[in-house]
Amino acid sequence: MSAQVIALTGGIGGAKLALGLYRVLPPHTLTLIVNTGDDFEHLGLRICPDLDTTLYTLADLANPELGWGRRGESWGFMQALEQLGGETWFRLGDADLALHVERTRRAARGEPLSAIMADLAGKLGVRAGIVPVSDTPIRTRLDTDAGELDFQDYFVRRRCAPRVRGVRFPGAAQARLAAPARAALASPALQAILICPSNPYLSVDPLLAVPELRAALRTARVPVVAVTPLVGGRALKGPTAKIMAELGVPQHAAAVAAHYGPLIDGFVLDSADAEERERIGCAVHVTATVMRSLADREHLAREVLSFAARLRPRRAP
Amino acid sequence: MSAQVIALTGGIGGAKLALGLYRVLPPHTLTLIVNTGDDFEHLGLRICPDLDTTLYTLADLANPELGWGRRGESWGFMQALEQLGGETWFRLGDADLALHVERTRRAARGEPLSAIMADLAGKLGVRAGIVPVSDTPIRTRLDTDAGELDFQDYFVRRRCAPRVRGVRFPGAAQARLAAPARAALASPALQAILICPSNPYLSVDPLLAVPELRAALRTARVPVVAVTPLVGGRALKGPTAKIMAELGVPQHAAAVAAHYGPLIDGFVLDSADAEERERIGCAVHVTATVMRSLADREHLAREVLSFAARLRPRRAP
Repeated sequence: MSAQVIALTGGIGGAKLALGLYRVLPPHTLTLIVNTGDDFEHLGLRICPDLDTTLYTLADLANPELGWGRRGESWGFMQALEQLGGETWFRLGDADLALHVERTRRAARGEPLSAIMADLAGKLGVRAGIVPVSDTPIRTRLDTDAGELDFQDYFVRRRCAPRVRGVRFPGAAQARLAAPARAALASPALQAILICPSNPYLSVDPLLAVPELRAALRTARVPVVAVTPLVGGRALKGPTAKIMAELGVPQHAAAVAAHYGPLIDGFVLDSADAEERERIGCAVHVTATVMRSLADREHLAREVLSFAARLRPRRAP
Repeated sequence: MSAQVIALTGGIGGAKLALGLYRVLPPHTLTLIVNTGDDFEHLGLRICPDLDTTLYTLADLANPELGWGRRGESWGFMQALEQLGGETWFRLGDADLALHVERTRRAARGEPLSAIMADLAGKLGVRAGIVPVSDTPIRTRLDTDAGELDFQDYFVRRRCAPRVRGVRFPGAAQARLAAPARAALASPALQAILICPSNPYLSVDPLLAVPELRAALRTARVPVVAVTPLVGGRALKGPTAKIMAELGVPQHAAAVAAHYGPLIDGFVLDSADAEERERIGCAVHVTATVMRSLADREHLAREVLSFAARLRPRRAP
C-alpha cells in the first residue's frame, strides 16, 4: 500500500496547502479531514463551506477571486431570490447550489455526510479523501460582545466585526470520527499527520474538539506537523490575528505552536519569523509559507512532507 | 366592492386566458383557483408547475419558447447537477429555482401554500389572486399501460407516451378549499366563475374532485362558463385529444361540455366548431378561441366575460 498522508484543514488557507499536497502526492494517498463547524442550514439547504472549498479547490473548480464558490459562476438564483424577498446575505451561485441541493436531498434520505462527499468528490474526479471530521453536526459558536453568535452570522453577516471572548463547539464532545477519517488514521501505511495553515481557533480547534481525533493525534506513531497560519504576526486572510488579540494571545507564530502544544512534533515557520524558532517547544522547519502561485503551494507541500519524513519515527511502534 | 371574477385553471393553456382576463379586468378583481395535482417533490424541493406557470405569466416573467419556467433563464444549476450525477430529467432554471427553494423553506416552517403564493405573487407585482385549490396535497395519478404513474413521470419523463386508462386524484376527496378560494367563492361581488381552456381530465378534474369546489359550482348564484380546450378536435398543446381517444371519449368540444355537464351554464366554442353548437346542452357562445397574440388573449377574455354577463343571473338568490 502506498504511503498515506492525513491533513487537517479548514477553508481557504488550508485548501491552498491541501492542493499543493494533492498535486505532489500520488493519487489516493491523501486524506483531508475537514472542519464542519462552519456548516449550517440555510434556505432549507445543508451548506458545508469548508468541505466545499476543499472539494472545489481539488477539483480545479474554485473561484480564485471570491475565495469561495465556483469559478465562472452565474447568479440568477440570488437575483430571483432577492426579487421574491428571500434572504440574500449568504450568496449562493447557481452551479454551487447544485452541490447544496444534491447533498441536502441525499442527507434527508439518511446517507452519512462522509459517504455523500466521497461520492460527489469522485464525480468531480478528485482522487483524494475529502472527509468531514464527523457525520454528526458540530457547530462553531462564538461568545462575542454582540452576544453568542453562530459562525456564519459572525463570519459572513457581521464580517468578523464583533469582539470574540471565546469559542465553543457544541456537538464536538459527542461526535464520533467519520468512518473514512478513522480508517485513514488507523492505516498502517500512514506516514504523517499535517495541520494545514487554517485558523487555529475557528477551523482547527473544532476538529481537535472531537475527542477521538485529539486522542489519535496524541497517540499517533507518525509525526504530527503544523504549518503556521501567521506570517510576521499577521494572517494572510481571515480574522486569525484579530481573534488572537481579542483572546489575549500574543499574535506570533510561536503562540500558535504553543496552542497545539503536545499534540504536534514539528512546526513549520515562515522565513520572515525565523527568530521565533527559539520560542517553539518542538522541532521547527523554516521556509517560505506564503502561497501565491501553484508552484508556491507545491513547494510548501514538499517542504512540509520532507520535514515530517525527517521527524519519523515519532515513537517506537 | 368591484365586481369579482373567479377562473379555474391549470397550466399553459389556462394561463393564456388567465392573462387575458388579468389584463382586461380591474386590478384585484380576478382570483385564479389553480390545479395542484401536478405538484411534486423533486430534489427535496416543492415544485408546483401550474401555480408557477400562472405566476410567471401574470408577472410577465414567463418563457414563451419553453412554455414553462422563466424568460432569460440560465442553466448553471442543471449543468452542475449533471456533473454531480444528480437527476436532470426535470429541468429547473437558475432563477426559477429561487421560487422552489423559497417556497420549500417557508412550507417547512408551516406556512400554508396559499399564503406563500399570495406573498410571492405580491412580491412580483401581481394584482390578482393566484390560489392553490387546497393547502393540502392533491396528486394526479394516471392508470396507464405502463402502470400507475405520477403526473410528472407521465408528462415530463415519459412525454405522455403511455396509454391512459384512467386518472385518480388522491387527496382531493379529503382536501378543503384554500381559504382565499373559499373567500372568493363566497364574495357577494362575485359575477362569474370561468373554467379556462385547460386539459379537462388532467388540469380541471383535479380541481373539481375537491368536494367543496364542486359543490360551490353546483350551487353558485353566478354563471359558470367553460372555454373549449379543443379546436377542430385537436388541442393546441398537450395531450388532451390523445387522452380523450384513450378514454374512449369522442374528440369533440361537445364532449368536453358534456364532461362538465350540469356544473356549467355556458360553453365557449371555437368558430371552427360552430356546427357542434347543437350537441351542447347549455348556452353556447361561438368565437375565435385560439390565442396566439396578447390581443387574442384579451379578445377572448372580453368575449367570455360578456357572454357570462349575458347569462346572469343564473338562479334567483
